[in-house]
Amino acid sequence: MTAETIPIAVVGATGYTGAELLRLLLGHPGVRIVRVCGQSKAGQPIAEVLPSFAGVLDGDVAPFDAVDVAGAARVAFCGLPHGASAGIVAELRARGVTVLDLSADFRLRDRAVYEATYGAHGAPDRMGEAVYGLVELYRDALRAADLVAVPGCYPTSAILPLAPLLREKLVDPASLIVDAKSGVSGAGRAPKPSTHLPEAAEGIRAYKVAGAHRHVPEIEQELSAAAGTDVRVSFTPHLVPMTRGILTTAYARAADGVTAARCTEAARKLYEGSPSVTVLDPGSLPDTLWARGSNRAFVSYHLDARVGRVVALCALDNLVKGASGQAVQSFNVRFGFDEGEALRSTAVWP
Amino acid sequence: MTAETIPIAVVGATGYTGAELLRLLLGHPGVRIVRVCGQSKAGQPIAEVLPSFAGVLDGDVAPFDAVDVAGAARVAFCGLPHGASAGIVAELRARGVTVLDLSADFRLRDRAVYEATYGAHGAPDRMGEAVYGLVELYRDALRAADLVAVPGCYPTSAILPLAPLLREKLVDPASLIVDAKSGVSGAGRAPKPSTHLPEAAEGIRAYKVAGAHRHVPEIEQELSAAAGTDVRVSFTPHLVPMTRGILTTAYARAADGVTAARCTEAARKLYEGSPSVTVLDPGSLPDTLWARGSNRAFVSYHLDARVGRVVALCALDNLVKGASGQAVQSFNVRFGFDEGEALRSTAVWP
Amino acid sequence: MTAETIPIAVVGATGYTGAELLRLLLGHPGVRIVRVCGQSKAGQPIAEVLPSFAGVLDGDVAPFDAVDVAGAARVAFCGLPHGASAGIVAELRARGVTVLDLSADFRLRDRAVYEATYGAHGAPDRMGEAVYGLVELYRDALRAADLVAVPGCYPTSAILPLAPLLREKLVDPASLIVDAKSGVSGAGRAPKPSTHLPEAAEGIRAYKVAGAHRHVPEIEQELSAAAGTDVRVSFTPHLVPMTRGILTTAYARAADGVTAARCTEAARKLYEGSPSVTVLDPGSLPDTLWARGSNRAFVSYHLDARVGRVVALCALDNLVKGASGQAVQSFNVRFGFDEGEALRSTAVWP
Amino acid sequence: MTAETIPIAVVGATGYTGAELLRLLLGHPGVRIVRVCGQSKAGQPIAEVLPSFAGVLDGDVAPFDAVDVAGAARVAFCGLPHGASAGIVAELRARGVTVLDLSADFRLRDRAVYEATYGAHGAPDRMGEAVYGLVELYRDALRAADLVAVPGCYPTSAILPLAPLLREKLVDPASLIVDAKSGVSGAGRAPKPSTHLPEAAEGIRAYKVAGAHRHVPEIEQELSAAAGTDVRVSFTPHLVPMTRGILTTAYARAADGVTAARCTEAARKLYEGSPSVTVLDPGSLPDTLWARGSNRAFVSYHLDARVGRVVALCALDNLVKGASGQAVQSFNVRFGFDEGEALRSTAVWP
Repeated sequence: MTAETIPIAVVGATGYTGAELLRLLLGHPGVRIVRVCGQSKAGQPIAEVLPSFAGVLDGDVAPFDAVDVAGAARVAFCGLPHGASAGIVAELRARGVTVLDLSADFRLRDRAVYEATYGAHGAPDRMGEAVYGLVELYRDALRAADLVAVPGCYPTSAILPLAPLLREKLVDPASLIVDAKSGVSGAGRAPKPSTHLPEAAEGIRAYKVAGAHRHVPEIEQELSAAAGTDVRVSFTPHLVPMTRGILTTAYARAADGVTAARCTEAARKLYEGSPSVTVLDPGSLPDTLWARGSNRAFVSYHLDARVGRVVALCALDNLVKGASGQAVQSFNVRFGFDEGEALRSTAVWP
Repeated sequence: MTAETIPIAVVGATGYTGAELLRLLLGHPGVRIVRVCGQSKAGQPIAEVLPSFAGVLDGDVAPFDAVDVAGAARVAFCGLPHGASAGIVAELRARGVTVLDLSADFRLRDRAVYEATYGAHGAPDRMGEAVYGLVELYRDALRAADLVAVPGCYPTSAILPLAPLLREKLVDPASLIVDAKSGVSGAGRAPKPSTHLPEAAEGIRAYKVAGAHRHVPEIEQELSAAAGTDVRVSFTPHLVPMTRGILTTAYARAADGVTAARCTEAARKLYEGSPSVTVLDPGSLPDTLWARGSNRAFVSYHLDARVGRVVALCALDNLVKGASGQAVQSFNVRFGFDEGEALRSTAVWP
Repeated sequence: MTAETIPIAVVGATGYTGAELLRLLLGHPGVRIVRVCGQSKAGQPIAEVLPSFAGVLDGDVAPFDAVDVAGAARVAFCGLPHGASAGIVAELRARGVTVLDLSADFRLRDRAVYEATYGAHGAPDRMGEAVYGLVELYRDALRAADLVAVPGCYPTSAILPLAPLLREKLVDPASLIVDAKSGVSGAGRAPKPSTHLPEAAEGIRAYKVAGAHRHVPEIEQELSAAAGTDVRVSFTPHLVPMTRGILTTAYARAADGVTAARCTEAARKLYEGSPSVTVLDPGSLPDTLWARGSNRAFVSYHLDARVGRVVALCALDNLVKGASGQAVQSFNVRFGFDEGEALRSTAVWP
Repeated sequence: MTAETIPIAVVGATGYTGAELLRLLLGHPGVRIVRVCGQSKAGQPIAEVLPSFAGVLDGDVAPFDAVDVAGAARVAFCGLPHGASAGIVAELRARGVTVLDLSADFRLRDRAVYEATYGAHGAPDRMGEAVYGLVELYRDALRAADLVAVPGCYPTSAILPLAPLLREKLVDPASLIVDAKSGVSGAGRAPKPSTHLPEAAEGIRAYKVAGAHRHVPEIEQELSAAAGTDVRVSFTPHLVPMTRGILTTAYARAADGVTAARCTEAARKLYEGSPSVTVLDPGSLPDTLWARGSNRAFVSYHLDARVGRVVALCALDNLVKGASGQAVQSFNVRFGFDEGEALRSTAVWP
């Protein structure tokens, strides 16, 4: 690394998205990590909290201090819980730090919707500044963004397959059903009964069904933007006995004459040039394992002509394209790096 | 066991449904197992082919011989692949043996549909004799059935939650979407790339999408019967990285004024008295782990009022209520045993 | 069940060993469950705390009250943590209840060893009353035992394969190495980082190495008894990414002329008549999956002639033969039931 | 990549070690992949055979042709089965290609031992040319090696922790026991019963016990070299229900006065400067998950003073440090790259 590398802070580094940020950024030739912050683990050796960095990252987890971070870093990646994030982001922005926020705090553009979903907002004045960090849809706006709201994992997996269909009016926007299956790492690092291996490893279940999941407004915001009309979805998340990956199976009534090939073509047009979305041929069925550890999403389309419905599939790694990799991708766009810098590795397969 | 126990043969005993039949029947006080037949493993010790029976079941796997089986057994459970089963079933029926057939060969009532789905039928003359072995829907007919077509695992998990809704016209029969997630044991005992642990253990994928799965006609046959009208479904099966269990998430447009409570009530009415279906309260979300190793299916209903759709969930063990347990349940009805005999064990949880 | 069934209480019913006790006892024709006690979950519906019993066990978890339990039950199975158990056991014994204690509190015969391992003992006066509940070794003493100390899961898996070798002096008692691999359920029901699926599901690790595990004194107590001399072992437990099962691989220097066949013969002689130990032929390598959900342990012996060591293997289900099933087996012996009553089911395989 | 990159062929690219070679080499700035060869899949698109490369690697799998490969490539990595590899390696060597052979064919220096273990050798004249590719032990010799015998996964995990102890005479070389636990990917890509998910996912078992595993002579060759005397080991491999990773637990009698700190110091001295071995402090217990997808091995030492034995642990990824990463590490040494080039990524954790 040379003197011109960009100094970076990772705030909230000791959760899973933080660990992935560190892994990816250590492979980025254009940055240097100058702060690794975490509140509950402050003072502990990084290698003890994140053992995969033993022998690689020396030093301790630092407590977060906005003045210190702003003095040392040009850019901060924040991997904090929603609610906790907004205030810290505002402190950093007030000191001129460009922030990539992986929490939900700046994803929703409508404050009322945010507050109905998550409670009071910690920095409402900053909401207008944020750009939604789904590079494939907001690439131009991201080039100048100093506050990037990195999308949620479920929304990414729902928007990528459905946006092209809605933009080109290939499906009925009133007919959308999104059935998503996620690995357990999406629930974060805090142990709880639903993530306790004996009760999670050999079964599958739905949770927060019938519109109760907090990602629903985010999905609907972006699908509405794509459709040019107000869209609502049936969304069911499921917990799958594996660590990483989201597979989304989306159903929509096909417009007259639409074929799987036509859907595929729409997606290929929209995602042309993206290093992170691979649109497979109809009949090719993506597996989340193909994406594990990589920033790649695999999308494919199928038509069930008997019932007139399109089935759209999307497989990705919730911690990479669904979180930390997507953040680095936005960073690359913002700072003029090749969009795939540090993100080119294929999956750790099998 | 006393002299009055019913002599039983298990044919096709060396696959997973065969092993489950043996496990369950060994705990049934009203039967004795007199033949354990399997073609490819004939002559090998049972305990070598099915190691969980070491120390319990002596003797070798026998080759199948209809005369021998009919001479020794009053009832045969057949766990053979579709296509291979029909001829053997016919041979046994011709000799007066009551047969519970776990294959697909006698499930479809329309020969043309069978042949479009599976190819030529090996014993079309016997098709009319079969009763569909979903006890909760065909209990009366099963009391006199000498050929029981034990339902498929996916159909069981789709029919149980949807039949009550269709019978009572609580949902629009033109709106059905069935998104099913199955453990890998449903693919059988023969190793193949899709079941090879390194490629199956840490990912999830859809397969045979858009109406391509062979269980679609079976699901539609039974849902049509329940609805009293011709029904088609969107059906997507998924392979989940676990051994046992199917979770089905079904979506349907709610009729006016329908609530989750109303759906629950319809199901409780239909399944009253069944030892094998537990209808949970709305808001309770079943996990396949709750059913592992047991003959119990868990069903629950939820209304997404925002979009006017019912979400129906069903969790069961594909090898038990989805196969061998269901067969024993039909047998119990046919021979006048308590319906739950040998099937009362709760799940091996966790 | 008839009026003569034995009234049973399960105390500490809401952990994994409690759930297994309930599952097994529900299938036991000689008992009726009259109390289901649990402190932290008292007042909650059983079916909410233990969802696999939904539709089967009505009623709420009861708070523990010794007078109440002693008034209602003849026998109590206690699935409490060590330390917490002793006092409750003493209260029940003082009221004449026969107790099968699944904790470590009464397994060690030497109070000093107990206190060095676990801290102060809550009921030292009762220690002399306890019989170690490894039926295969203490069958006669158990017939009259009113306080049974049910063995630990690791000790069971170490003692079963090694006791026959030590009794018959087939191996050097100074050379014992016990390398044990356990599923995660052995760590109990409380979520913690080491059992959090994302950090536990796709890796294996040793823990409490070099003699630090609390089961070491218990293993050494029983192996010393078998050897007739003071025995020490190298013991390393490992956490394996699965829910149930322990596989123990034990190494010992073979005495002159000892063969695998000779070891096998010694074990078969000792375990003759046990419904719960299957001694396999040399060359047959047990898998924990063969035992899942069953009360069976599989043992086999191998000689590495190049280095003069016996390799002894033992596979069992830590929650059944390693805990709750073993407790029921002791109960059967104590009350004159067939030793295999309620324990005959083969494994839920696969 | 510039014109000076080294043209590389990957032969036997469609198995798991081949896929890992492609993943790692795509991230190596000093190479370009010019041939991707595979016999059974020749003619198929790479992205169909290895789906994680969809959208990244165009073109088809090529049939192997030595003249063609030698014409295009300066270096070949061969991921073929033992037996099949030797002849192909010889053809490539005869044409001046530097070969990194991941098979067992050139690892054993004694032809008689090779033939007793694997059968007739396909290119015995080349045996003397091979250098054992464990960089940490053979770094100097590898700088000039044109035939590198990349070590086996089990041997790597056994030699790394034990070699420092034997070199410095800290343990008794007659007392070595190596108990190794491997993920299923070590068994290769061909489906078989032992790797079929339903029979492999929820159990653990030993296999090829008592000296029967083919890696025993390789382990003994290298430990004998380290000890300066003829060494034999008790070796037991186990199959663990996970895809990647080997954890080796080794036991050895400690020499007088040896401590865990002394062992640690010996290992740190030997592995100083290696980017791929991290020696942890005593008391730190490595998990294979910490190494998944990375070329790092974690080693630690513990003393069980009660019994006078050292317990040495080693965790690594069998497909990376145990195979393909180790090959790239040797390549880096041979061609003067930084030893960690393309190998610096930390693990995909969790």
